[in-house]
Amino acid sequence: MAKKISKMSKADLKAEVKRLRRRARKLLGTGGTAPAAPAVSPLAPAAMPALPPVAGVAFATGMAGVRYQGRVDVMLARLCPGTRMAGVFTRSATRAAPVLDCEEKIALPDDGQGAAIIVNAGNANAFTGAAGTAAVEAITQAVGQAVGVPGSRVFSSSTGVIGDPLPHQRITAVLDDLVTRLDPAGMADAARAIMTTDTFAKGASETVEIGGETVTIAGIAKGSGMIAPDMATMLVYLFTDARIARAPLQTLLSRLTGPTFNSITVDGDTSTSDTLLLAATGQSRAPEITDLRGKPAKDFAAALERVMLNLAHQVIRDGEGATKFVEVAVTGADNDADARKVAMAIANSPLVKTAIAGEDPNWGRVVMAVGKSGARADRDLLSIRFGDILVAEKGWRAESYTEEAGAAYMRRPELVIGVDLGLGRGKSTVWTCDLTHRYIDINADYRS
Amino acid sequence: MAKKISKMSKADLKAEVKRLRRRARKLLGTGGTAPAAPAVSPLAPAAMPALPPVAGVAFATGMAGVRYQGRVDVMLARLCPGTRMAGVFTRSATRAAPVLDCEEKIALPDDGQGAAIIVNAGNANAFTGAAGTAAVEAITQAVGQAVGVPGSRVFSSSTGVIGDPLPHQRITAVLDDLVTRLDPAGMADAARAIMTTDTFAKGASETVEIGGETVTIAGIAKGSGMIAPDMATMLVYLFTDARIARAPLQTLLSRLTGPTFNSITVDGDTSTSDTLLLAATGQSRAPEITDLRGKPAKDFAAALERVMLNLAHQVIRDGEGATKFVEVAVTGADNDADARKVAMAIANSPLVKTAIAGEDPNWGRVVMAVGKSGARADRDLLSIRFGDILVAEKGWRAESYTEEAGAAYMRRPELVIGVDLGLGRGKSTVWTCDLTHRYIDINADYRS
Repeated sequence: MAKKISKMSKADLKAEVKRLRRRARKLLGTGGTAPAAPAVSPLAPAAMPALPPVAGVAFATGMAGVRYQGRVDVMLARLCPGTRMAGVFTRSATRAAPVLDCEEKIALPDDGQGAAIIVNAGNANAFTGAAGTAAVEAITQAVGQAVGVPGSRVFSSSTGVIGDPLPHQRITAVLDDLVTRLDPAGMADAARAIMTTDTFAKGASETVEIGGETVTIAGIAKGSGMIAPDMATMLVYLFTDARIARAPLQTLLSRLTGPTFNSITVDGDTSTSDTLLLAATGQSRAPEITDLRGKPAKDFAAALERVMLNLAHQVIRDGEGATKFVEVAVTGADNDADARKVAMAIANSPLVKTAIAGEDPNWGRVVMAVGKSGARADRDLLSIRFGDILVAEKGWRAESYTEEAGAAYMRRPELVIGVDLGLGRGKSTVWTCDLTHRYIDINADYRS
Repeated sequence: MAKKISKMSKADLKAEVKRLRRRARKLLGTGGTAPAAPAVSPLAPAAMPALPPVAGVAFATGMAGVRYQGRVDVMLARLCPGTRMAGVFTRSATRAAPVLDCEEKIALPDDGQGAAIIVNAGNANAFTGAAGTAAVEAITQAVGQAVGVPGSRVFSSSTGVIGDPLPHQRITAVLDDLVTRLDPAGMADAARAIMTTDTFAKGASETVEIGGETVTIAGIAKGSGMIAPDMATMLVYLFTDARIARAPLQTLLSRLTGPTFNSITVDGDTSTSDTLLLAATGQSRAPEITDLRGKPAKDFAAALERVMLNLAHQVIRDGEGATKFVEVAVTGADNDADARKVAMAIANSPLVKTAIAGEDPNWGRVVMAVGKSGARADRDLLSIRFGDILVAEKGWRAESYTEEAGAAYMRRPELVIGVDLGLGRGKSTVWTCDLTHRYIDINADYRS
């Protein structure tokens, strides 16, 4: 029971104010009544990795004031002649104007001209009718003129509020300045320019030897909420100096999206703007990759997948309000599709996610999620593990399981929930985070 | 910015402690550091409606101490000879032992003997292996002996924690006492006995004239979280004195479940215990209902649907942490199935639900949910309304819409989100609530 205020000394009162303020900060993640800038996610990497330049790519960032004043909110990437572009986009039925434009352009014949990517934060240019389409046209034409490529080779993305008209003149007004500052070493700054509710900038890179020469793959991503990608994720831009034709490049990108960006979920909500672009500049001296079955292609694909998975995991580590990074690994399903249904049912269950937030080893809710998933399951063949701890099997709690062991495990910041259905060889792994008060703070306020 | 503690007077400090304590209570929904008993939902009806006795049905409740000491946690209903039973149960692949038992019994030939329903709170007897099945057998046999019906005519439900063995002896130990206290006026007490995280007891009734005689329908329900029923809802028991054969009774119940209990969602999570039972005692003097196409059957069905919808709405009004009662009405879809996909995508979207909690007229998130639903939609034909306010149409915000009007509307406790897809005649209405801090408080702690 709290002490009566009338009976407290001044020292007591001071201590109580201190305690209550600390508690309010903890509850809200903010320092006072005004919403403070979000702290960095506790799951963030210690530092952003150094991103190597990729030959043929240069970046510039600027303050266009699209929505926020005084923050970098636009990034431009220029890609040299000979660059091959591949892309994967959201399948949302209400996708944004820039996404529709990118889809059209990525399907055009690739004549090996130069290209450009322009991205703004603060406004998604989604559900903005004919004005939205006109804004994309104005921006991409202006960028094309500024960097010397046709408008059909300019790919644009917008992220932020849905339904407000995009003040595209603010973006075109800064292009001349951006072009003078294009810098091959600017990729990390570009990652910062495209953040919205993100609490850290996301980048990853790999190198791979092909024919005795080094090929570099590097990329950046943004995303924190509205994350349940459907064919792509929020915004991801990948760059490589590999020499590879358009068709195999697109095939690889599409194939690798399934086990990476399409296997993460923060909240089960799918953005109207999900865009994943991969630019291959062909500037490496490594031999051209032509046959996807050969060792060079396999090595390249493995490195590309590592970059994609690394970025996908960073998106989850920055999931809105996240305090736990959770891998859900399902095996033993009738088929992979069923395994994915079970994995996503667990990863998107608010009851599972709140239990994880509360560090409660509530395996009964995992059983519930398996049951509702729609996949075939047999209660008596199902087994559940938390990390290496066998929790339940044969239709009941495992004999060896103790609540203490489960509770101790749940206090870790990184968790693995393993489910074996005991039916077949289908498997699927997805990644998610917990559901905390901070998610509600962010989303009861933030206008997206 | 908060004032420095060192510069505050004693009066300032007192005021600040008061303010911070009030704020902490608001944030947590509790009065201190210990989790307090949940307050009654702000959406609760002013009072529980009076529930009329239904001829042929008597209730008793007791304290078995299944999980909680000192609270009523078990209810028994005795049904007179001639009672016809119908039921709808969850399709969860991990459904609980009592559900599996009920499914078997409801399929047996109905010889018009008496029957009984026994329900406990505190333990769901779900995922409890062979011991769970044995517990159901022990309880239903003991109830049968106590009330004088075969065990095959005793229907049991259990609600509460998943995965803990049900201490069935605690229930059978109180049966003799329960039987001595069976009371036709005990339905409201029965509603209280089956509550778990519910903050109010749920009951509803209707009467209907058939052949000049009155038929009564009354029922009770429990449910607050893990609500996204799949063929039934949490626990619902309906009673009527109508004379109606088993087959049409089951047909009606199954048909009416779709637009009522299967059209509500709190959190998109589906219980392992969902059970809906309807007992028709045949004690009314009204003529028997034999033909579902006749006026008597239609009148009876309409009254039954009103009771079912009333109880379904009460479950939403007691949604965990709910502060808003939300109807999502979708029209103009290609077909009803598509309309339902859209309605459920909106009703289950954490981003839509947190925006509602924040009283933010964030219609862009409704667009997002339409887009991800998987139903066919055309951005430019879609229109969105908040109540009577046209918010968006023709691929953009409506010209007449103002943010002020939207914001004022969102402050209401009861909201209607209308979406017209502009494609066809498919429609669907579902009901849900908002997603608040309280939901997380309840579920990061409560072991279900």
